[in-house]
Amino acid sequence: MNVKTPEVAVIGGGVIGCSIAYHLASEGVSVTLLEKDRIGEKASSAAAGMLGAQVESGFPGPMVDLCLASREMFPSLARELKEKTGLDIEWDGTGLLRLAGDPAEGEELRERGAWQREQGETAEWWDPKTLLRREPALGEGVAGGLFIPGDSQVSAPRLVQALARGASLTGAELLEGAEVRRFRCEGGRIRELETSAGRIHPEKVVFAAGAWSGILAEAIGLRLPVVPVKGESLALRWHRPLFRRTLFAKGCYLVPKADGRVIVGATELPGDTSPGVSAKAVHGLLREAVRLVPGLGEADWERAWSGLRPGTPDGLPYLGRAPEHENLWVACGHFRNGILLSAATGRGLADLLLGRPVPRLNPFSPGRVLAGERR
Amino acid sequence: MNVKTPEVAVIGGGVIGCSIAYHLASEGVSVTLLEKDRIGEKASSAAAGMLGAQVESGFPGPMVDLCLASREMFPSLARELKEKTGLDIEWDGTGLLRLAGDPAEGEELRERGAWQREQGETAEWWDPKTLLRREPALGEGVAGGLFIPGDSQVSAPRLVQALARGASLTGAELLEGAEVRRFRCEGGRIRELETSAGRIHPEKVVFAAGAWSGILAEAIGLRLPVVPVKGESLALRWHRPLFRRTLFAKGCYLVPKADGRVIVGATELPGDTSPGVSAKAVHGLLREAVRLVPGLGEADWERAWSGLRPGTPDGLPYLGRAPEHENLWVACGHFRNGILLSAATGRGLADLLLGRPVPRLNPFSPGRVLAGERR
Amino acid sequence: MNVKTPEVAVIGGGVIGCSIAYHLASEGVSVTLLEKDRIGEKASSAAAGMLGAQVESGFPGPMVDLCLASREMFPSLARELKEKTGLDIEWDGTGLLRLAGDPAEGEELRERGAWQREQGETAEWWDPKTLLRREPALGEGVAGGLFIPGDSQVSAPRLVQALARGASLTGAELLEGAEVRRFRCEGGRIRELETSAGRIHPEKVVFAAGAWSGILAEAIGLRLPVVPVKGESLALRWHRPLFRRTLFAKGCYLVPKADGRVIVGATELPGDTSPGVSAKAVHGLLREAVRLVPGLGEADWERAWSGLRPGTPDGLPYLGRAPEHENLWVACGHFRNGILLSAATGRGLADLLLGRPVPRLNPFSPGRVLAGERR
Amino acid sequence: MNVKTPEVAVIGGGVIGCSIAYHLASEGVSVTLLEKDRIGEKASSAAAGMLGAQVESGFPGPMVDLCLASREMFPSLARELKEKTGLDIEWDGTGLLRLAGDPAEGEELRERGAWQREQGETAEWWDPKTLLRREPALGEGVAGGLFIPGDSQVSAPRLVQALARGASLTGAELLEGAEVRRFRCEGGRIRELETSAGRIHPEKVVFAAGAWSGILAEAIGLRLPVVPVKGESLALRWHRPLFRRTLFAKGCYLVPKADGRVIVGATELPGDTSPGVSAKAVHGLLREAVRLVPGLGEADWERAWSGLRPGTPDGLPYLGRAPEHENLWVACGHFRNGILLSAATGRGLADLLLGRPVPRLNPFSPGRVLAGERR
Repeated sequence: MNVKTPEVAVIGGGVIGCSIAYHLASEGVSVTLLEKDRIGEKASSAAAGMLGAQVESGFPGPMVDLCLASREMFPSLARELKEKTGLDIEWDGTGLLRLAGDPAEGEELRERGAWQREQGETAEWWDPKTLLRREPALGEGVAGGLFIPGDSQVSAPRLVQALARGASLTGAELLEGAEVRRFRCEGGRIRELETSAGRIHPEKVVFAAGAWSGILAEAIGLRLPVVPVKGESLALRWHRPLFRRTLFAKGCYLVPKADGRVIVGATELPGDTSPGVSAKAVHGLLREAVRLVPGLGEADWERAWSGLRPGTPDGLPYLGRAPEHENLWVACGHFRNGILLSAATGRGLADLLLGRPVPRLNPFSPGRVLAGERR
Repeated sequence: MNVKTPEVAVIGGGVIGCSIAYHLASEGVSVTLLEKDRIGEKASSAAAGMLGAQVESGFPGPMVDLCLASREMFPSLARELKEKTGLDIEWDGTGLLRLAGDPAEGEELRERGAWQREQGETAEWWDPKTLLRREPALGEGVAGGLFIPGDSQVSAPRLVQALARGASLTGAELLEGAEVRRFRCEGGRIRELETSAGRIHPEKVVFAAGAWSGILAEAIGLRLPVVPVKGESLALRWHRPLFRRTLFAKGCYLVPKADGRVIVGATELPGDTSPGVSAKAVHGLLREAVRLVPGLGEADWERAWSGLRPGTPDGLPYLGRAPEHENLWVACGHFRNGILLSAATGRGLADLLLGRPVPRLNPFSPGRVLAGERR
Repeated sequence: MNVKTPEVAVIGGGVIGCSIAYHLASEGVSVTLLEKDRIGEKASSAAAGMLGAQVESGFPGPMVDLCLASREMFPSLARELKEKTGLDIEWDGTGLLRLAGDPAEGEELRERGAWQREQGETAEWWDPKTLLRREPALGEGVAGGLFIPGDSQVSAPRLVQALARGASLTGAELLEGAEVRRFRCEGGRIRELETSAGRIHPEKVVFAAGAWSGILAEAIGLRLPVVPVKGESLALRWHRPLFRRTLFAKGCYLVPKADGRVIVGATELPGDTSPGVSAKAVHGLLREAVRLVPGLGEADWERAWSGLRPGTPDGLPYLGRAPEHENLWVACGHFRNGILLSAATGRGLADLLLGRPVPRLNPFSPGRVLAGERR
Repeated sequence: MNVKTPEVAVIGGGVIGCSIAYHLASEGVSVTLLEKDRIGEKASSAAAGMLGAQVESGFPGPMVDLCLASREMFPSLARELKEKTGLDIEWDGTGLLRLAGDPAEGEELRERGAWQREQGETAEWWDPKTLLRREPALGEGVAGGLFIPGDSQVSAPRLVQALARGASLTGAELLEGAEVRRFRCEGGRIRELETSAGRIHPEKVVFAAGAWSGILAEAIGLRLPVVPVKGESLALRWHRPLFRRTLFAKGCYLVPKADGRVIVGATELPGDTSPGVSAKAVHGLLREAVRLVPGLGEADWERAWSGLRPGTPDGLPYLGRAPEHENLWVACGHFRNGILLSAATGRGLADLLLGRPVPRLNPFSPGRVLAGERR
């Protein structure tokens, strides 16, 4: 059997792996991407596509900075992908409303808004009256909301598809049904991947396998703790839009999509790797959705699904060179921010692999696990 | 184009039309069945498959008698279909529990049970303690239940499929995508059907088009008031059964199927012909299901669907010779009892078409509409 | 039950009906669209989305003119729909190659190209050598091709969806599951539509029901001969594109889509209204596709489907005022050109309904049937 | 997290794992089955369901004996599963026709038939004339056939479902989405499975992971060479049966199912683990199917799919105790005979795990790999 010898082997065909492959291929690097099932079919297409860099950020730090930087990359990424592939990722900049369920939460959100404005971001507090004037479909009992015009959205399945197509059109090789069976390491380097699609001798390797990255790392003795956190979501279809902005509250969020669907998300079940969606998840999400926007009861049911988000103990992704293998890089553990961070991760990892320093990724070095354990 | 000349043309490929075609073909009659879309894809496969002859019967009369008679035909029909087609319709005689939501409803059910026993049927009142001992998964607040061992169930989609296959294997011609465009009548007879599948000159015609029968009748000037009543249902999938008997309460019923699914039904929306299932229907059915059997919250969501039941003003189906066309028979308007009555309807209509009297169908004559209007 | 009183009732929710509704609603006209099943689910989304105004035009006349005019409307329609709805219809102007199977066909195509250039259109003859240099994946035995850069394509399902969404967002009411049961006419006007969604008293009515328009017309005594012509197609998915231009040959066409699929079409079966796709159609289309582009054998199978194109005896659509009902307009019979003509038809019919003359539609007047029969 | 301590952990939820779990649970053994995706969704439901013990057996030996023994178990297994679960596996004993493509193949088949009769099996040679009289839909050019009345069939997806339901109903715990991440071995025993569904401390472990068994074995240093052999199949749907017996020829087989489908199989692609079905596979299978039975061209296309059969270097499955771990058993490598051998494998492994000798499994001991390598 012939042996493939790409410059880079990317393991994992979700939005992160596809973005890295896309950015590398765009620079002329030869890339082979290995996906054990089908590209983009797991967590990446289970996502609602929110680019919520501000909505959940409560305190300053490198994570917020990375999220904001990644969010800003989407409009031009959208244009670039449309041009290269003909696919539109449906970027939508209408903004997001973070809703307060009661006055105490309202107070908290107002403070968060003030702090964000200090950081130079836009965030506008709307009292209940203003809120209902601008989003009249909201139910009673909403205690105001923080309007974040900068938090935008894309179609998550179309994003993965466009990145994969873009990578492929610029020369990357994307293999589906290609599972790594064994690594051959030598002298601190990964020399060979034995896969179900044959042997691969890459110069460099990237682990971008989302919730499966921990198992992968295990095989070469690398500690990379990743906790799968199951998320269940559902989609409704309305005939006439009831609201235009993404609505985000405790208990559920509602993301209106261009095609007339509203995505309602999401549960969080750490450690649950079962497939499927429970009846109580559907029940709970619908109850919250209809409480928030009563008119949604008239929308048509479409479907429910689940995915496994890759959580990490400290809540930060692993991005960067692996501590003990000199030709291995890691990009995983994005938890709920995989779509949002896919732009900065793809760009950043491509730069790292090409030997360019990316200072803003330093805080996310996978070496921190080892360092933490040694302390 | 060649002209078909079957003895009988059956219009409508739901469970009723297929059962009539099956029984006719079994007697050697040449039958052409015309279905405008696909066989068995509308109300028939939307049904939960309950054979609930007793569960809703509150007073004696020809309707109860017909339901009981039809229910009794299923065990042998199941054997016959298995033998002829290899398909098992999954007849299940475990019985049905009619649950009382409060003591008043309990009282009512006990009386109904007493009355049914007088009629020679079996119906057993279980007080709350007995009930919870026998069905320990039931939630609190159930005020007892009437156990009806005779009310059984089948798989509705498999029943339609087996009847259609059985009809086809014994010589009936089943045409899909075959819509009647025009009737040519002459001397009180339907002489020709002009259909999208060509011209048909049948000796006899049967209207068995469910909720569409009224439109059909309109075209030949026959008054046959049929009101579509939309019903929405959903299916869950459990890993280990929580109960064995069909549970029937105000607000919802739960039918456990052999393949590990539980069907939860059903809304009733008269006059609503929209496709799809509303979010509030899913929400409401799940809320009731989980109230009845709390453990169902852990079951997996499967899917939701809807169908149009054919309702009639007096609640009785139209079964028999049409009043003013001497070669036209009608079998429609079964409302929620289409699966249950399919056995007796198919057998009965076949007999009528073959010139045999079927006294128990007399009360369902479609002529009663005309008679009613003349009074 | 309440009665709806829109200015215009459009019957039919395919691409034609949706385009008319969209253009009317954009001008502030109140529109109710009635679709008996679901919007865009029949022939419209079965189409490959070619905008082939030149590819099949062999002689000058009003049909070619209308096709060319409609084709030119798509780039701006695409921008407008993207802006209004957020949906991209994936217009692609890479052009089309009309392939010659043998020298005689080549000669014919060269002549057609010459004639088209005389008309001011672009059409370039590529001899076999040029052809294989520009499209190296083509199989041997292709005797040259006519390159038509102006013939473009869109995603047919996304076009219908965007038109429907656009209509809805600008105020049109789109009803699914809404079947017309009876017309009430009076003094040469349609006064009332009795539908499964209630009574409608429109000022004006448009028949845009594709292959079902003939049945509709029948109900008010209008002769509108429409012959359903079944077409079967399939889609493959490639990993890396083998060609970029739409390929059109005798026996099959291949339309590469942005999402990595190639649509292979299509059979033509006049009078066949059965649902489904035959094994021999799949076999035949695949055989031709692989003969044309041998590398397609490696592409992944995706799926097959069929639709009913509305054919007319003279090959021209019916567009304009109906001959004997003063408030009825007709837009149907587009045969294989429904997607291509949807832009000009929607715009043109909206103008006619608003009382503006549209001379280029004159040759398509539905009155020609009556006139023809009187002769 | 709590630790599960079943007597037996079965890894793999295909037909083999489910059959073992079913037979163990039926004897009161506590079983936990771990399936990394969903039960029965891989090769097991991709199978056509043939129980072809004789059709491919060319020479005597333990493999033929095991196949024959397993085939004979199905009628009673079918009854038992129907009784326990309510699910019918659609066992069909109509028999199988092994067709000869030319006189040489005919000669070979006649000899094989003679030899089988010597072994006490039934096998009847039909010359072309007899053949066409009994199966008149066969195309010309068939040079006779060997009728094997004993080779029967079941519905493969229903078999897996019934075994899984039966196991679950008798107390086995079936976990989906449960992937083994690490084995902890000690003193020649597997002490712990670290899985995505928690820690498991079983007394005994069974590897029944089909094409994935090799990767699993790798993790504990066990050599268990399994080669995935991709197979592609498709299903057609006919309206009226063209033949009743399973037809088996070089190039394709045709298995008529009770529900009106015909399964056409199958390609064999060793080492190909890609998902999906190629265009050329669909083309090739259809071409052969229509050559064999021309009338199949009129059947409706349904769908195509693929699965990975677990091949072994010597063509025999691995059944029995693993050579170097005293609490590990193996049941994999069934290649094309997984459905056929599921009955004997489930019964046999259950016996072995319960300490009962099963002499007929001796030739299939996984220890032969090690022995072979030591030689």
